[in-house]
Amino acid sequence: MTREEMNMIGFEIVAYSGDARSTLLQALKEVRGGNFSNLDALLADADENINLAHKSQTQILTAEASGDNMDMGFIFVHGQDHLMTTILLRDIIGDMVELYRRK
Amino acid sequence: MTREEMNMIGFEIVAYSGDARSTLLQALKEVRGGNFSNLDALLADADENINLAHKSQTQILTAEASGDNMDMGFIFVHGQDHLMTTILLRDIIGDMVELYRRK
Amino acid sequence: MTREEMNMIGFEIVAYSGDARSTLLQALKEVRGGNFSNLDALLADADENINLAHKSQTQILTAEASGDNMDMGFIFVHGQDHLMTTILLRDIIGDMVELYRRK
Repeated sequence: MTREEMNMIGFEIVAYSGDARSTLLQALKEVRGGNFSNLDALLADADENINLAHKSQTQILTAEASGDNMDMGFIFVHGQDHLMTTILLRDIIGDMVELYRRK
Repeated sequence: MTREEMNMIGFEIVAYSGDARSTLLQALKEVRGGNFSNLDALLADADENINLAHKSQTQILTAEASGDNMDMGFIFVHGQDHLMTTILLRDIIGDMVELYRRK
Repeated sequence: MTREEMNMIGFEIVAYSGDARSTLLQALKEVRGGNFSNLDALLADADENINLAHKSQTQILTAEASGDNMDMGFIFVHGQDHLMTTILLRDIIGDMVELYRRK
């Protein structure tokens, strides 16, 4: 896999993760304003984009595991960071919502 | 250090960080359910795994600082992301627990 | 761009992000103690350091986009992780503060 191919996948991961993150922050904003009605739909939407980012990531994992010499570029590293921080937000958002419910 | 050696360290970091993260999310789950009695033990357990991940990471830092030509692979980058997002969760979990206490 | 140049930028990003993160955790600590008076100043201070880290990061993005062959090292990857996890903390701190306000 060339660096150009890896960068394309990196861009995909940035885009999907960025969409998921925006949706999660939107969910927090609505909950902060007292609106819990869109929460489930927003979480489902974010999960879909996280899954798409994961699928892109899997292409890299598979290539590396098969012995392909991966040429890491900035965009790919950046994509990974986007995905992993978004997954952390996904992991804790349930507690943040719960804390808003109990306020 | 070869990419294979770096990847082995990357896998170690993923494993230790993943254990720490699971333990932290378990602590949040118990606190959400009103059980604060295991909290200190769970945090200590997570800290132990974060320390082990840090020790693995230090091998890389030391090798790079001594001029070793590091051949970054996906798994190592992934391990770094796992560790750093888990450390962020560790940094904020005290406030999340405190907010549950004050609910 | 040589790996040494990238590492220098990586160190800059670690330093600026680390400062921002310490300031954000300091803000959380003060809010936990009931003091909201320094909050705006602390957030502004953190934002300034995040912006400086972003500017360093942009040098890399620009170099890679212009076809420069980037030689990723550990320090740069580590800097990216520092910056991105700090940005996530910045994204959620408003809600954590709001939850403390409503406690």
